[in-house]
Amino acid sequence: MIEIYTDEFFMKEALKEAYRAKEAGEVPVGAVVVSGNRVIARAHNQTEVLGDVTAHAEMVAITAAANHLGSKYLEGCTVYVTLEPCPMCAGALAWARPDKVVYGASDDKGGFMRYGKEMIHGKTQLQYGVLHDTCVKLLKDFFKEKRIENEYLK
Amino acid sequence: MIEIYTDEFFMKEALKEAYRAKEAGEVPVGAVVVSGNRVIARAHNQTEVLGDVTAHAEMVAITAAANHLGSKYLEGCTVYVTLEPCPMCAGALAWARPDKVVYGASDDKGGFMRYGKEMIHGKTQLQYGVLHDTCVKLLKDFFKEKRIENEYLK
Repeated sequence: MIEIYTDEFFMKEALKEAYRAKEAGEVPVGAVVVSGNRVIARAHNQTEVLGDVTAHAEMVAITAAANHLGSKYLEGCTVYVTLEPCPMCAGALAWARPDKVVYGASDDKGGFMRYGKEMIHGKTQLQYGVLHDTCVKLLKDFFKEKRIENEYLK
Repeated sequence: MIEIYTDEFFMKEALKEAYRAKEAGEVPVGAVVVSGNRVIARAHNQTEVLGDVTAHAEMVAITAAANHLGSKYLEGCTVYVTLEPCPMCAGALAWARPDKVVYGASDDKGGFMRYGKEMIHGKTQLQYGVLHDTCVKLLKDFFKEKRIENEYLK
């Protein structure tokens, strides 16, 4: 039997959200929350449109998933996000305690892993590198375009 | 001349918010954001009532202050909070870059300082221990009452 609901399958859903962010001129990061093979929350980075540093994809998705579940703890859930969470988002994931966190691209400079995996909850499984190249390319292309734009605006 | 607008003055405002949290059955933590000696945002912990782990006092106050300023960066602002921020809130403060963060009670177990001051932005001044005893007492009394309640509910 072929497994449809793989980590790649749901990371693609997170990537769709990241593309939406890009189209809106936001740094392209997307996230989905999955429970029982169903996407129960999806979100993308909205820091620019909302003028709010807390509106990262993961934060918006965690709040939406909690609303859907009627519980602040994301029991039985996996959070997929295209980029390694920043310390703020890792802190939120620590409070929300999903079963699993899966991210695509690593972020050596801004990601939480420089503080160690311990930053998220001990019971939360962690996986990374899923669709890594696609997640990285989307971000690199975005910043490259921004630089070109800025050149022309000089 | 007597200085009215001291750190203690604004920490009292944050404490008023913490009391509101307590009255609502929430862990009593309050925060205010001050710009030019004016409180431009005030909030208390609302994680229980909203069923949302991201609804810490600081997070709500940062979003409200950004809305007020029309800017996601809290330039010229001081954030007062009754308890040492957790890593999530410290991460949000790092993004929001206020001029100064002042907290009352320390939180050796859950606070961000175990990761070092570097977790907030380099340009943000940090101060702590303002109205320390009052901030601690409010939290201790809350948890003591909770324990007594739980004893009766057994």
